[in-house]
Amino acid sequence: MRKFQVLFLLVSILSSSFAFSKPDPIKYRKSVYQIMGWHFGIMAAMAKGKKGYDRDVFMRSAAILRFVSNLPLEGFPVGSEKGNTKAKPEIWLDMKDFEEKMLQMQQEVSVLEEIANIGDLRKAKKQIGKVGRSCKSCHDKYKTK
Amino acid sequence: MRKFQVLFLLVSILSSSFAFSKPDPIKYRKSVYQIMGWHFGIMAAMAKGKKGYDRDVFMRSAAILRFVSNLPLEGFPVGSEKGNTKAKPEIWLDMKDFEEKMLQMQQEVSVLEEIANIGDLRKAKKQIGKVGRSCKSCHDKYKTK
Repeated sequence: MRKFQVLFLLVSILSSSFAFSKPDPIKYRKSVYQIMGWHFGIMAAMAKGKKGYDRDVFMRSAAILRFVSNLPLEGFPVGSEKGNTKAKPEIWLDMKDFEEKMLQMQQEVSVLEEIANIGDLRKAKKQIGKVGRSCKSCHDKYKTK
Repeated sequence: MRKFQVLFLLVSILSSSFAFSKPDPIKYRKSVYQIMGWHFGIMAAMAKGKKGYDRDVFMRSAAILRFVSNLPLEGFPVGSEKGNTKAKPEIWLDMKDFEEKMLQMQQEVSVLEEIANIGDLRKAKKQIGKVGRSCKSCHDKYKTK
């Protein structure tokens, strides 16, 4: 009986807190890209001199960007091509190519993190360009304008 | 001259890829919570037996939840109380209390990660309850329904 009570309490707490809405992969992947864009934006602003260069902040954003860059794929399950999304259905017709482009981006982001940790802003600028190109390459093919 | 060309190319690439929209802290914090909810949901579903327990998946979600749990505060700068948000203005009237609640949640999430790594599902269930309560405690005070 006590076990059931605990379970009931647990379920009540969880339900009230998150209301257990159905997981929405479209919202999930958009959120992932939102966070990536936020931190890429911080780094790009510093690289362009729009913001003063702060090595710690730059490193932190690079680390967060790298971590989060590993998350998007989970947000593209079969069936998630329909809904409030700019993702083209072509993604699911050639998932292997999409995954390769994702991997390419992840690799460029990893290199950016390494450079950020060394603290070489000149190299970081160039690498930000490479990351940007890897984003663009995928957006051009798989994202509607 | 070459430097300018490189810079121009860089700016063009970045602009075309990200369009450099103004960073939006409200979207940022919502995205962070979205990702937290996604992974907490995976763990809660396993803890409730709605999904089969997969230790690796459980551990992965715990690690992601822990990492991302450190990000929300950046999304609550002064001035971001207005807009498409359920955050109550009270947050900015007592930021110290808000930060304490955030820290409480982060600590509970850290413990959850440790338990997930040990692989004790029974303990994990209890800890999921604690994490849920720490979420609820903050939502009750600082989030409109």
